[in-house]
Amino acid sequence: MTLIDQYTSQYGPMSKIDAFGYMRYLKEHPEEARKHGKIVMVTADTPLKASRGEGKTTTTIALIDALRARGIDAAAVLRQPSMGITAAGSKGGASGGGKASLTHAELVDWGLCGEMGAIEAAQNLLVSFAEKAVDEGRLDTILVPRVSEVPSRSLRAIAVDRGKGDIPERVVLTPTCELMQIVVLSRSMDEIGERVAAMIAGTKKGAPVTFGSFIDLWRITNILVDAVKPARTQTRQGSPVYIHCGPFANVSLGIPSLVSVEMACALHDVVVVEAGYGADAGAQKWLDIACREYGAQWPSTAVVVSRATTWRDDPTLSWRYQFHVQRLEELDIPTFPLINLWDGEDDQIESLRATAKDAEFRDPVIGNLFRDGGDALVDQLDGFVDALQHGSAPAQPHSHRGMSLVENAKWIAEHAYGVPADRVLLKDGFVESLSHAETLCAALGLSLDDLSFVAVKSPATMTDNDSAPEDQRTVTLKKVEVHAGAGLVQVNLTTSLTTPMPKIV
Amino acid sequence: MTLIDQYTSQYGPMSKIDAFGYMRYLKEHPEEARKHGKIVMVTADTPLKASRGEGKTTTTIALIDALRARGIDAAAVLRQPSMGITAAGSKGGASGGGKASLTHAELVDWGLCGEMGAIEAAQNLLVSFAEKAVDEGRLDTILVPRVSEVPSRSLRAIAVDRGKGDIPERVVLTPTCELMQIVVLSRSMDEIGERVAAMIAGTKKGAPVTFGSFIDLWRITNILVDAVKPARTQTRQGSPVYIHCGPFANVSLGIPSLVSVEMACALHDVVVVEAGYGADAGAQKWLDIACREYGAQWPSTAVVVSRATTWRDDPTLSWRYQFHVQRLEELDIPTFPLINLWDGEDDQIESLRATAKDAEFRDPVIGNLFRDGGDALVDQLDGFVDALQHGSAPAQPHSHRGMSLVENAKWIAEHAYGVPADRVLLKDGFVESLSHAETLCAALGLSLDDLSFVAVKSPATMTDNDSAPEDQRTVTLKKVEVHAGAGLVQVNLTTSLTTPMPKIV
Repeated sequence: MTLIDQYTSQYGPMSKIDAFGYMRYLKEHPEEARKHGKIVMVTADTPLKASRGEGKTTTTIALIDALRARGIDAAAVLRQPSMGITAAGSKGGASGGGKASLTHAELVDWGLCGEMGAIEAAQNLLVSFAEKAVDEGRLDTILVPRVSEVPSRSLRAIAVDRGKGDIPERVVLTPTCELMQIVVLSRSMDEIGERVAAMIAGTKKGAPVTFGSFIDLWRITNILVDAVKPARTQTRQGSPVYIHCGPFANVSLGIPSLVSVEMACALHDVVVVEAGYGADAGAQKWLDIACREYGAQWPSTAVVVSRATTWRDDPTLSWRYQFHVQRLEELDIPTFPLINLWDGEDDQIESLRATAKDAEFRDPVIGNLFRDGGDALVDQLDGFVDALQHGSAPAQPHSHRGMSLVENAKWIAEHAYGVPADRVLLKDGFVESLSHAETLCAALGLSLDDLSFVAVKSPATMTDNDSAPEDQRTVTLKKVEVHAGAGLVQVNLTTSLTTPMPKIV
Repeated sequence: MTLIDQYTSQYGPMSKIDAFGYMRYLKEHPEEARKHGKIVMVTADTPLKASRGEGKTTTTIALIDALRARGIDAAAVLRQPSMGITAAGSKGGASGGGKASLTHAELVDWGLCGEMGAIEAAQNLLVSFAEKAVDEGRLDTILVPRVSEVPSRSLRAIAVDRGKGDIPERVVLTPTCELMQIVVLSRSMDEIGERVAAMIAGTKKGAPVTFGSFIDLWRITNILVDAVKPARTQTRQGSPVYIHCGPFANVSLGIPSLVSVEMACALHDVVVVEAGYGADAGAQKWLDIACREYGAQWPSTAVVVSRATTWRDDPTLSWRYQFHVQRLEELDIPTFPLINLWDGEDDQIESLRATAKDAEFRDPVIGNLFRDGGDALVDQLDGFVDALQHGSAPAQPHSHRGMSLVENAKWIAEHAYGVPADRVLLKDGFVESLSHAETLCAALGLSLDDLSFVAVKSPATMTDNDSAPEDQRTVTLKKVEVHAGAGLVQVNLTTSLTTPMPKIV
């Protein structure tokens, strides 16, 4: 029995791994054999619509199958798709497709091993405890939202205790809640407990009150015992795949749990991490939150997925793909365009290569991954593997802790969205929202500027109007919300509406 | 590999069984070796408070351990406790205690394998689809409630789409919802699909609209794939225990799934089924709903659990225990009092036996089951085992289909609560509620009188005032709600308030 087997239990056709326990063991036993895998980040062009994927998961699966076919011990770490959105028919699943699929895609898409349900119950229990605290006079206003994995537009704004208190509340999607962020970012159950304790439950006479001041933390961590364990499954070709946490980079983090990635790096030479929606969302968050602020590993290479049609569907938006690739290259991440062909597009390979050459990209990787899976890629990866194996050591990025929130927003606008600082605008009410967040933090002995910046925006846009000419694009800052437990400050950006609780479409 | 092993998968320290598949195989292969176990129903005195258990689960565990120590192949079927209520601290878990415990009680109490979360997601998705149907003009009023496993008093009445529609809604506890009832009562996934299709989503111009008229049923059944599988675990002494569905007999069924009990009967000679809260709730429902209307097996013997103190704590309520035992005996079910002693009560055994003798009960079984587990019982079960092995064949009860709802209520009041028909009262508004339910059913081509009657009441009372003298006790009928998919009509009884969504205490 190998070491990892001792931390692994079967759960139906999947297995689940006590990643916290395994990583703790490795830390306490530095002599233990382990790998130090490099990270490949798979991200994508900004999608034209939130419901339309470019094929990140399909690519991730095909890529590890192709790497393994070349004799490289590669594995993938995927995010758990939101079953609610899939079940509602608002979006397909997120478990690949065709030959680039998982062996049990149906389980991944339909609730995995109950992880999301457990996080939902735990976050909702926090709200119930906050409600009890109101009854007991500890709180007068609840700030933490209830959650639902199932989308329902009429839950965006609700009133509870109808006919009596008529208290306004909101409900957000489970995968976007602070407790999910805490599970994504924490490296032990103790850390989860500490972060839950630091969550702001609400206020009493304007002063913030944290959950640690009035709840038994074990009631929350007990619910999460299995939810913190990454699931392990495999591709149809037999390549190892870990799945844990975190879709919805538009309104949250959009990355798998840090511990699942670190565990995979201890077990494999190459770990392909899925980050999305587009590079402006999931990749920005992997780099600027996970790596810069939470010690995750900087990618050794990146792949930016697009469909062949994306550049044609809306020519005024075609600048975005080029921008993403250049941005990552400027960060010293060798970045490979990958064009995920659909049926009937094989004859476009020549013109796609020409387009990539004009853009001064590296040689693009092109294939019909649904139809051919990793076989489409295996012979095209010489340059990719060379960059991965012989590139310089990953960067150690500087933290932005202490940078003011607006400066941080301007930095992100410039670096991740291509909008200079003087075109970052503050919407009416933003300054008040910022000031309120600063006051909340100050009352807790925190500086707002020490929290990591989470952009909250439409997945389909990076600026107030991506179709505008470059010199007219702006980014408007709208609203600030503190997630003190997760260590994040969420900032609503751009004039595009986010859909915190989509209707079923 | 045995036949049942082929239908069993490991889920962490538990396993889960495809009971639908196993039972279908047995039906299609009548030559296959199987058992035809007898059923023992473990129920209890009506509790003094909902939060205070008498020890049904502890008794069930000790009883099978004792039966197995006597060489009898016994197993238990337990209901999954509500994690929300346990996590909130409103009630202990429901997985036994002390020596009469399960090997992984913590998993049972804290969400098992995600079954409740899946049922919650599926029922809430139905509401979201109903909401979409409102947008599309198919519905104007939604009748199916949202659910939450986590209790929260302010969710009893909410308004959604605040500031726009301000639509009144209610939220009920997940274990009490119609979809949970459907999972409890169905014997195949096809049956679940048919029952979901028959659920009333809401009304359009007063006429009922069922989910089958506008949703893809596979979206619901896919969510339930694992939730329909009973979990298998064991007692600390190694006795087999199955766990599946259904707490809260006060407002719902309070019995484990029928398929889990039938599977256990095919695998073991004696199957102990837990039904509660008290005999007026879970036992009444096992007998009058599961057996009478859904073809479940009539118990061969029953055990009615009480604490030694129950008769003393409130002398005006002590009639209830005697009533329950006599009622079951009159149904030709040999019924054994079981007194679950607490520490310091060993010296009361003599007086408890005397009390039982005065009441003309069978010899009571008495023990400190937390401390001694099945060891406390093993030498006391001669009479019980004799009745179980040599009693007459279980009854084939007559259906009440076609009996009018009020006649059915009077029958239950008389037989299960000891209140004669002329003291069954109709509260103002009841007739209108009944008439509305009849109209709904008629519009669907159903007769309300063909639905099974589910009493909805406080777990701690059987009548409007259990402390009143016998000849003054009444039962008031308050409200009617149709669950057309489950085939049930829920009737709120007695003046005691139910708590469809308790606050955290």
